[in-house]
Amino acid sequence: MTRDTVRLADLVARFGGEIVGDAGVQVCGIATLRGAGPTDITFITHSKYRAELGATRAAAVIVSEAERHSTSLPRIVCRDPYAYFARVAALLHPPPVVVPQIAATSVISAEAQVPRSAAVGPGCVIERGASLGEGVALGAGCYIGENASIGDGSRLYAHVTVYPQCKLGARAIVHSGVVIGADGFGFAPEGGRWLKIPQTGRVVIGDDVEIGANTTIDRGALEDTVIEDGVKLDNQIQIGHNCRIGAHTAVAGCVGIAGSTTIGSQCMIGGAAMIAGHLAIGDRVVIGGGTWVTRSIDSPGTYLSVIPATESGEWRRTVALLRSLERMSDKIRDLERRLAELEQEQ
Amino acid sequence: MTRDTVRLADLVARFGGEIVGDAGVQVCGIATLRGAGPTDITFITHSKYRAELGATRAAAVIVSEAERHSTSLPRIVCRDPYAYFARVAALLHPPPVVVPQIAATSVISAEAQVPRSAAVGPGCVIERGASLGEGVALGAGCYIGENASIGDGSRLYAHVTVYPQCKLGARAIVHSGVVIGADGFGFAPEGGRWLKIPQTGRVVIGDDVEIGANTTIDRGALEDTVIEDGVKLDNQIQIGHNCRIGAHTAVAGCVGIAGSTTIGSQCMIGGAAMIAGHLAIGDRVVIGGGTWVTRSIDSPGTYLSVIPATESGEWRRTVALLRSLERMSDKIRDLERRLAELEQEQ
Amino acid sequence: MTRDTVRLADLVARFGGEIVGDAGVQVCGIATLRGAGPTDITFITHSKYRAELGATRAAAVIVSEAERHSTSLPRIVCRDPYAYFARVAALLHPPPVVVPQIAATSVISAEAQVPRSAAVGPGCVIERGASLGEGVALGAGCYIGENASIGDGSRLYAHVTVYPQCKLGARAIVHSGVVIGADGFGFAPEGGRWLKIPQTGRVVIGDDVEIGANTTIDRGALEDTVIEDGVKLDNQIQIGHNCRIGAHTAVAGCVGIAGSTTIGSQCMIGGAAMIAGHLAIGDRVVIGGGTWVTRSIDSPGTYLSVIPATESGEWRRTVALLRSLERMSDKIRDLERRLAELEQEQ
Repeated sequence: MTRDTVRLADLVARFGGEIVGDAGVQVCGIATLRGAGPTDITFITHSKYRAELGATRAAAVIVSEAERHSTSLPRIVCRDPYAYFARVAALLHPPPVVVPQIAATSVISAEAQVPRSAAVGPGCVIERGASLGEGVALGAGCYIGENASIGDGSRLYAHVTVYPQCKLGARAIVHSGVVIGADGFGFAPEGGRWLKIPQTGRVVIGDDVEIGANTTIDRGALEDTVIEDGVKLDNQIQIGHNCRIGAHTAVAGCVGIAGSTTIGSQCMIGGAAMIAGHLAIGDRVVIGGGTWVTRSIDSPGTYLSVIPATESGEWRRTVALLRSLERMSDKIRDLERRLAELEQEQ
Repeated sequence: MTRDTVRLADLVARFGGEIVGDAGVQVCGIATLRGAGPTDITFITHSKYRAELGATRAAAVIVSEAERHSTSLPRIVCRDPYAYFARVAALLHPPPVVVPQIAATSVISAEAQVPRSAAVGPGCVIERGASLGEGVALGAGCYIGENASIGDGSRLYAHVTVYPQCKLGARAIVHSGVVIGADGFGFAPEGGRWLKIPQTGRVVIGDDVEIGANTTIDRGALEDTVIEDGVKLDNQIQIGHNCRIGAHTAVAGCVGIAGSTTIGSQCMIGGAAMIAGHLAIGDRVVIGGGTWVTRSIDSPGTYLSVIPATESGEWRRTVALLRSLERMSDKIRDLERRLAELEQEQ
Repeated sequence: MTRDTVRLADLVARFGGEIVGDAGVQVCGIATLRGAGPTDITFITHSKYRAELGATRAAAVIVSEAERHSTSLPRIVCRDPYAYFARVAALLHPPPVVVPQIAATSVISAEAQVPRSAAVGPGCVIERGASLGEGVALGAGCYIGENASIGDGSRLYAHVTVYPQCKLGARAIVHSGVVIGADGFGFAPEGGRWLKIPQTGRVVIGDDVEIGANTTIDRGALEDTVIEDGVKLDNQIQIGHNCRIGAHTAVAGCVGIAGSTTIGSQCMIGGAAMIAGHLAIGDRVVIGGGTWVTRSIDSPGTYLSVIPATESGEWRRTVALLRSLERMSDKIRDLERRLAELEQEQ
């Protein structure tokens, strides 16, 4: 990959900020403080990295106002170096250009809509009634079911499965192994057996959503499962039927969200958190990694329930003590009673 | 999808129950109390939904004896409205008819058995010695390994992988991304390295089993991994080698079951529960979501170990107190001793 | 599968150990004590299985010095029967021979390197600049991205996805549904939205690594995600961007490792353990199943944090008591104060 070169002056013209030092310095890559070489621009997000800043070999640095004087390198001073870094990185490492083409080994229904601007990889299958938006890119072996639709500018990597009727918005990024719209887990018990409940809803996904590898989002039972605009889902997440995830909520890897739960907008759900079904989580709620949510949460705030790893001997004692909590509580009550008697006799 | 219309009288003729009101009312869909329109039948499963029942726009309702008088709409009174709903939904939303056909882009060994009644999607691969039953439908890109067999009437959605020798029973429903029969995690430690133990068993799956998206079931090490009849597995479940899951057990999403564990029949395993290896869980055991099972369980009942999410400040204090439990226990003992001395002196 | 027959004398010539009894006994399979038939060799790893040893129908047994006299069957006495069993099993059940061939339905770039000794299954896609080593076998439907490389003798089962630039070492075994090199979860928050940070690093995997079904390993953000030699990963593991897993570490199923965490060599990570991001775990650390690691761990040892399943009524009381720990602690302090007063008055 030959990459374009860009001057600090060009960056500031695009993204704002103030240059301190030589505005003509050219960079062609972005890197960490440690990893940067003489053609890279780097960035510092926290004063604790000042020692690394002192040792960096980068050509230039993105800094906050607080770090304006922490280096003598050419630098861009801005309000939020991490966001600035994201923009510079996106400029220097744009996603691959979509070259419109239809692979010979793809199988596309005559009743599907595939615009000339789309790219369809080898082995893709697009069923009747399905439609791709302008500039959509499907990696190898994607499956787009009947009447499913993919919004403009979306990119599906290899081996993504979209079940019938499901809808993705514009500019989606969907990684390999994702399954959108499989049946939710709906069964009625009857005489020790399970009757399957047809899952007749869809998955409806807004614009600017990213979905990580091997994540699964089930179709609704009767109504739809909804993922709103700007939601970011990491890998191996499971979202049950009839859930709704609010706009711009980010969900880290290995999270499970059981059916019919609604999550507000701008929430952050830590890795491997598990959220029970039929709950309502409000806006701007932060759930810690591994936390188990069993009740609805109204108010913004941070919620936890994970106990950190402990050396095994100490942990075994803790578990034993946990099991004796009831006895401890009884003993305290007994002590209180006996002490009160003694005090009275005094 | 144009759907058939059905009269209440037809439903009662098929599924039993008693009609109150106009038996000639026609419905063509099933929906929630809130979502129902004037051509839908709906259902009520709990008295807490009576307000919604009052406001529903549905044409008819499925109710229990207890709700017989809770609505003036035409209604079917039955013993178990949820199971009744499942049956009506299945009637109104039958699975797509399997149209026998072999996609031109599939690759089928001359030594595989594929009956005329089967449907094989684009890009499927069926290896030698493999066999499909009557009416089997394989979605796009399924892989059926050597000597594997799929029972009559089974439906595999796109991108299912069945390793060699594995067997699925009749009427299986297997969702996308499922992997059946990959090697179990078997290694012998030797001098700081790991020697792979060939996994020579199979996965053997009974009839009427459903398997959710991206679930994995490992083949046995020396003997077989067995999933009995009627088992329902949700998405992203991991079942280790040599496990046996008893008939009609339901396992919710994200559950992990380590190797050589046996689970009885008619159990319910909640989402993200984790079950250690080499255990025996009896029949009709209920494991709560997120619960960690480390010992065998003989008796039916419900088992839990998850602590619900707590506001972060309170939780941090709880964790600190957990770590001081031993000191608390010591203090209680000390208080008991000193109090006994005082009492004696009295 | 017709299998070769082997004499005990042949096994000892290859793998060492001492024969007690008839060295000419022939075996053609390996099985458990219970499952073995008269043409099998079996093994005993613990004295608790002596009763099963007494009842086995096997032709011969692999035993430790301690069990030398526990059977009258022909036997091989060796230092580590489990490792010996692994070697015998590998001899009797070798992986299928790779027959070099390129499936007609595969799509291979003219600018990819595929040696004559490789086998490429139906529907595989190999992009330009990608390279396969000698004797590599790709199962059906594998995707090898641009400039990715697969080391000599590696076997990828059906439906493995390797993103561009990623590197696998020699003799890798990669199971179905694995995704190597999808984007890490990197976003900068800005005004309630998320800016995507391009993930420009790679995944670099050493030699002799095995990766279980549906496991995902994300590419690095700026630098690489690294899996060192001899690492064994079970199914449904998620490894975040910029992680490094040390040589010969074994990770059980459903584990999640968040971004930028480094794990030492020869560690064992139990199933469903979760390791937070930006941590450093030393060599030879054992993490129990389900344990949540939130801090770096320097010293070898075993670490736990899981509470075992408890009957639901008892568990609900424990959770309530947990929530009252602060009150209990306050009461103990109060009791101590009052008791000290009484003691002083005495």
